[in-house]
Amino acid sequence: MRSVSIIGVGTTNFGVLEGTGIKEMASLACNRAIVDAGIDRKQVQSFYLGNYIGGILVGQETLAPVVACELGLQKTTACTKVEGACCSSGIALRQAYLLIAAGVYDFVLVGGVEKMSSASTAKNTEALAAGMDKDKEGYTGLTFPGYFGLVAQRHMHEFGTTIEQIGMVSVKNRQNAVRNPRARFRKETTLEAVLASRLITDPLKLMDCCPIADGAAAAVLCPTEMAREFSPSPIEVLGSGHGLGQSTSYAMDGPSCTCTVYAAREAFARAGIAPSDVDVAEVHDCFTIAEIVDTEDIGFFERGRGGPAVEEGLTRVDGRIPINPSGGLLSKGHPVGATGLGQIYELVKQLRGEHENQVKDAEIGLAMNLGASGLVSTVTILRRS
Amino acid sequence: MRSVSIIGVGTTNFGVLEGTGIKEMASLACNRAIVDAGIDRKQVQSFYLGNYIGGILVGQETLAPVVACELGLQKTTACTKVEGACCSSGIALRQAYLLIAAGVYDFVLVGGVEKMSSASTAKNTEALAAGMDKDKEGYTGLTFPGYFGLVAQRHMHEFGTTIEQIGMVSVKNRQNAVRNPRARFRKETTLEAVLASRLITDPLKLMDCCPIADGAAAAVLCPTEMAREFSPSPIEVLGSGHGLGQSTSYAMDGPSCTCTVYAAREAFARAGIAPSDVDVAEVHDCFTIAEIVDTEDIGFFERGRGGPAVEEGLTRVDGRIPINPSGGLLSKGHPVGATGLGQIYELVKQLRGEHENQVKDAEIGLAMNLGASGLVSTVTILRRS
Repeated sequence: MRSVSIIGVGTTNFGVLEGTGIKEMASLACNRAIVDAGIDRKQVQSFYLGNYIGGILVGQETLAPVVACELGLQKTTACTKVEGACCSSGIALRQAYLLIAAGVYDFVLVGGVEKMSSASTAKNTEALAAGMDKDKEGYTGLTFPGYFGLVAQRHMHEFGTTIEQIGMVSVKNRQNAVRNPRARFRKETTLEAVLASRLITDPLKLMDCCPIADGAAAAVLCPTEMAREFSPSPIEVLGSGHGLGQSTSYAMDGPSCTCTVYAAREAFARAGIAPSDVDVAEVHDCFTIAEIVDTEDIGFFERGRGGPAVEEGLTRVDGRIPINPSGGLLSKGHPVGATGLGQIYELVKQLRGEHENQVKDAEIGLAMNLGASGLVSTVTILRRS
Repeated sequence: MRSVSIIGVGTTNFGVLEGTGIKEMASLACNRAIVDAGIDRKQVQSFYLGNYIGGILVGQETLAPVVACELGLQKTTACTKVEGACCSSGIALRQAYLLIAAGVYDFVLVGGVEKMSSASTAKNTEALAAGMDKDKEGYTGLTFPGYFGLVAQRHMHEFGTTIEQIGMVSVKNRQNAVRNPRARFRKETTLEAVLASRLITDPLKLMDCCPIADGAAAAVLCPTEMAREFSPSPIEVLGSGHGLGQSTSYAMDGPSCTCTVYAAREAFARAGIAPSDVDVAEVHDCFTIAEIVDTEDIGFFERGRGGPAVEEGLTRVDGRIPINPSGGLLSKGHPVGATGLGQIYELVKQLRGEHENQVKDAEIGLAMNLGASGLVSTVTILRRS
């Protein structure tokens, strides 16, 4: 297997991008990645595009070829949309990594996109719930806020995690986002404000929940041995993991999303490093409690120690393991199909030393997504070359 | 690159499978493929599931992990839904082929599924049109029957193809399906009946159009060097192609769907054979005219000779190059995400010498899908070991 590197990244801002359609957003981010990589678009041999609910929300499928035509890619380019709920573009990146590592392709473009703001909150909630197993939980009326409320209840019950610790995730991530021009929300907040915000699903309040957003992100990958021809600062993909869980696994398996445990295990094994080697991480904080569970499932903290870790400041940008210095989904917003590559964009900037909220001397970064109610997870580990 | 073989296939019947949901159908076909392969499901390292509009029609996304849980796959199994309109499960098969050939995985399960009969015709038409570029043609009101009506008009104009030749595709494929227990329509018809059927989009009549259907199909692949441990009759994947076109390419590029030309070129190059070496083909006859264009784009006939070829009987089951001996989409029905692997199922039975409508001494088979309005195409070439 060859070493693989990211030689270019691109993104749109995340937020309400009124008047900009799904094809335009995806094309914009992909074009930026191609320009950042300095390759000729004719070199792109394969294109994987992550998208979750573009069919339901804006009636656009066959999205990879549609965007590829807009980009002017070659007719020989194999174009594929991949979907795995919130992991969609994490999965897209993994396909590029595996196929380049194995020598099938040299240059692969990956993207992710979602257009949400043109649909109502109710329609978004319904569409997002398409990720749940309809037979087992969809028809019970469970939605994602409901699911993560249950996760929070269980975590508090098992470990004594407090609602204050959970709320501190929101405070930290909003603080981080102040410096991030790509984030939807860039104002600081306080723990009091989080706790006083509207109850959504007990014990989670409004400010425990990430907002929907429009957005797109993209990256160009190639073999590391070719990377320096294109980029002065290629970022190596050190490892990738892709795990399977089960619906409501948190309730069934105990206080863990097992798909993340398996994805992290695979990624660390491929990378040959341990969680303690990671300098910066962007993890899936679709709800505040999710970030706490993620950091335990990845192995940054022991089971039950995720809550105290936030309280002790270990996950701040100057802490032992900075988590979501970008502001995370809670601040950037969560354009589902774009989120995974949005994290990669943030990490590449961190590892290049160019981030607006820079983690000092960051060499190794980790991105992680959790899809649906614990059904699927992707973990990607990056290293500064 | 290692040689790759199919060691097991499974399918449901195609048709109106009332009371059977999308998860159940996919699981059924996948289970049958696993049993046919004789592997332990714990051996499956990766699972690619093709689906097109399950989000829009039945509100189920994250379908690959949902089905994987139903199947009882390992938590380490990387599960990915791929989408490329009618090419969705052709693309799924290609991922398995590439990753096994490159040595990333040994055992990959691929599936395809669509649930259509629970939605109205209007809803299906709207959902199917999600494959078109919304900006360029979707909002003009063009649907797929409309698009293929234009394709037929152009082919008749350029080459003198007759409406009788086009209708003969339907007569042939209905005749073929009489013997196929998996097909939705199994009654013979006549050219007079086709021409007298209701006008849908000039010049295409009702019997020029394939019906919607519910259905699923699946296959298990592994390296050819390991295949004989599991199957007495492994079928080698000799080549694969995946081409890009553009919306309404037929109208813009002249009388050809260029994505198919590029996909076929790649597949034949990988296989090291020519179109004349193929003994049997299952091609994308979503409309009668599509089969004629497909056979020209693949290279079975010169440009403009597809119509006369049907009239001369060259594409009959006993002809020079039997096309759609299964009955094709016109008779089997077109559960979009399942269609590509449905073709593979039929070809594997042909190459094993077990088909109900057997092509004599078939050694090499070709499957081909056309996605959206000429946006994407996949071609797969199989060989009896």
